[in-house]
Amino acid sequence: MSRAKAAATGDNWLEDFAPYRLYRVTNRLNAKLMGRLKAAKINPSQWRILSVLKAYGALSIGRIVETTLMEQPTVSRVVVQLERDGRVSRRSSDSDQRVMEISLTEAGVAAFQAIVPTALRHQELAFKGFSASDIARLTELLARVEQNLEYYD
Amino acid sequence: MSRAKAAATGDNWLEDFAPYRLYRVTNRLNAKLMGRLKAAKINPSQWRILSVLKAYGALSIGRIVETTLMEQPTVSRVVVQLERDGRVSRRSSDSDQRVMEISLTEAGVAAFQAIVPTALRHQELAFKGFSASDIARLTELLARVEQNLEYYD
Repeated sequence: MSRAKAAATGDNWLEDFAPYRLYRVTNRLNAKLMGRLKAAKINPSQWRILSVLKAYGALSIGRIVETTLMEQPTVSRVVVQLERDGRVSRRSSDSDQRVMEISLTEAGVAAFQAIVPTALRHQELAFKGFSASDIARLTELLARVEQNLEYYD
Repeated sequence: MSRAKAAATGDNWLEDFAPYRLYRVTNRLNAKLMGRLKAAKINPSQWRILSVLKAYGALSIGRIVETTLMEQPTVSRVVVQLERDGRVSRRSSDSDQRVMEISLTEAGVAAFQAIVPTALRHQELAFKGFSASDIARLTELLARVEQNLEYYD
């Protein structure tokens, strides 16, 4: 099998493929955040769940899966841990009695408040030199991609 | 256990946390791309490896892991499949005889060319309405984050 000339050197095409650029940055960011959380002895899975409950209020297990993008069995297991530690509580939804919703307890809010500086420090380092308008521009571009994905197929 | 008032409704803080916005967009983009590849009967792992070899030329297994962000055992297994199908070949590096490098064969380049329209269609749908300068701006902002990550800790 002969080696194609262009194949041996590479044409850098992925540098112009925006989904790859996003994928690469996100993975690197995530690795740094995970490292920072672990160094601070914080369980990253617990943090993810606390952070979405703080942001979006009482959520079903399904909505936690959607917002954290974690696997359902992991979410179920970690919610049990958080419940055992008194950081979240479970009750049936006001709008549909059959749906159980998870929400932060006061101790859960306190746990979130204790961790959030670590996450914000991560953001500060990763987005060093970004002005408020750079951040706004990035957020707006990402929101447009998310909107496109709604009508994707 | 009492429910904190703010905790039950949510404060949306994650919408302003840029690492989460990137993480969410990237995961949604990736799910769509995986769906599109699978619908076209393309093995996503094989595609990822073909795409980095096309972009960056002959690479060691370690560099394939770094550029695809896949797990090392998966990379090793998929490279064996691709080799068996005649799409990649293995030879020792010109710069260091102890390092084996993988590169696309002509059949591998042809396989890449057959798949790339599916990936480009994905980009087209996800970035619909983006001007060339929107894409350039996004790429530049992401490059600045990657640069910050080099000096992160």
